[in-house]
Amino acid sequence: MKNYIPVIETALGRYLPAGEYEEQQLIDAVRYSLDLKGKRVRPSLTLAFAELCGGTVDMALPFACAVEMIHTYSLIHDDLPCMDNDDFRRGKPSNHKVFGEDIALLAGDALQSIAYETMLSDEAVAAVGGKRAAKAARILANRSGLLGMVGGQVIDLSLEHREVGAEIVQLMEEKKTACLIEAACMMGCVVAGATDAQINAAERYAHAIGLAFQIVDDILDVTSTAEELGKPIGSDAENEKNTFMSLLGIERCREMVADLTEEAIRALDAFDGDAADLKDFAVQLANRKK
Amino acid sequence: MKNYIPVIETALGRYLPAGEYEEQQLIDAVRYSLDLKGKRVRPSLTLAFAELCGGTVDMALPFACAVEMIHTYSLIHDDLPCMDNDDFRRGKPSNHKVFGEDIALLAGDALQSIAYETMLSDEAVAAVGGKRAAKAARILANRSGLLGMVGGQVIDLSLEHREVGAEIVQLMEEKKTACLIEAACMMGCVVAGATDAQINAAERYAHAIGLAFQIVDDILDVTSTAEELGKPIGSDAENEKNTFMSLLGIERCREMVADLTEEAIRALDAFDGDAADLKDFAVQLANRKK
Repeated sequence: MKNYIPVIETALGRYLPAGEYEEQQLIDAVRYSLDLKGKRVRPSLTLAFAELCGGTVDMALPFACAVEMIHTYSLIHDDLPCMDNDDFRRGKPSNHKVFGEDIALLAGDALQSIAYETMLSDEAVAAVGGKRAAKAARILANRSGLLGMVGGQVIDLSLEHREVGAEIVQLMEEKKTACLIEAACMMGCVVAGATDAQINAAERYAHAIGLAFQIVDDILDVTSTAEELGKPIGSDAENEKNTFMSLLGIERCREMVADLTEEAIRALDAFDGDAADLKDFAVQLANRKK
Repeated sequence: MKNYIPVIETALGRYLPAGEYEEQQLIDAVRYSLDLKGKRVRPSLTLAFAELCGGTVDMALPFACAVEMIHTYSLIHDDLPCMDNDDFRRGKPSNHKVFGEDIALLAGDALQSIAYETMLSDEAVAAVGGKRAAKAARILANRSGLLGMVGGQVIDLSLEHREVGAEIVQLMEEKKTACLIEAACMMGCVVAGATDAQINAAERYAHAIGLAFQIVDDILDVTSTAEELGKPIGSDAENEKNTFMSLLGIERCREMVADLTEEAIRALDAFDGDAADLKDFAVQLANRKK
């Protein structure tokens, strides 16, 4: 994919209030987590799909940044002591370690509202029209919410207490990870005025790469641990219940990644524009080594 | 005001998913807090202003319910141990006491996304148009977010560690309480196609009753405690720093409530319709005894 990171990071900063406020600590906490260097995969996909459908980076930026804001809020809340209790995120202290649990909770809450404010601003609505802005924002709300990303986190929590089949693990990952990637890709199409068939194709592409990404993650978890310990691959898999690797084994996992990557590439046929970058991206995700 | 409560409560239930899902516990947690019996002041105001501006209850219901969802998420997060650590809410165990902190956190997060999904649904957009739906949703995002309700909570937290003047207490209450009431009233106007002057008048009304409500709260806190203890009013006021009563005294507080109530009533002049109910509501708030 094109390197959209600089334009995304500049825009993210611009959507936060400048100047001095009584709630400065909250603004600092929001900015701290938005500034953590990441790959910006989701907003880049929004921009790439918007361009693929004949739209511009400018019209899609508020929506790209909104999906990154939603992703960022979910990371802040995920790291809280009542959730994963993680002290570090992307190599830096997690939000609540710097600002305290109360401010971190509220920074996550505020990021969610800033996402909608950004997508529904006068500027964003003027660029794409009220109907498209509303539709894109609704897709993000749907995929990030009760039966989407947040739902996936709840299923994930429930897996600590029970053993399940691969189909529940898949459902969990579809919701927890793929849903937000779906929103990112679909929103790019929506704001650029794509057809329903194209929006559906973007959803299929996103679903496939999102799921493949998680399966590769599971594979790398096991193979890199086995490599470090000098053990044959798979000998430790039974220690980690409820993962694709432990439930399906490495052969089936590799098959699934290949099938999903093919599915993602096939979905790109729905677009007239040049989708070579998005095809390469799917292949890179499947072949990554860490 | 008209009794809008039954129509609001029926609609709130309808916006939640029916059927069985893997994330059932999350849906139950969301429903638990939405079902807690309250006065439903904010959504009632949305409906009342929509009707005042010639709109219908039906077109305004998604927006009315959204403001109640945002209010409900803020209560769930407020009650968490890292915030106010309250075990009870409206006479029932708070959300995290029933479902655990992790699910309560996620239920609050999900409620925020459901609010936007509800306002930006195909049905809601078809009834009021994409532009109005986007504008109403943006107002809610703005007033509930970083420089609105959430900002007010951060200022409130900061007051534990410092002593401030009445203007900071007022700023905190304007954000923490009045902002969401402003969104409720303004959204009713927006969806009904009101003029900018009317939307501004609704904002002034909401600001005035929101602030008056808090000052009356402060007065009742002191007077009812004094009554219970058989002490002269005001003799305990110095124990509670950073309240209107401790900073300004009972005479000035009563004057402010009278001024704000007059301001609220005057703002209603901007509307052609019958605003008697909204006038009465402002007077009742000022005169309430508990």
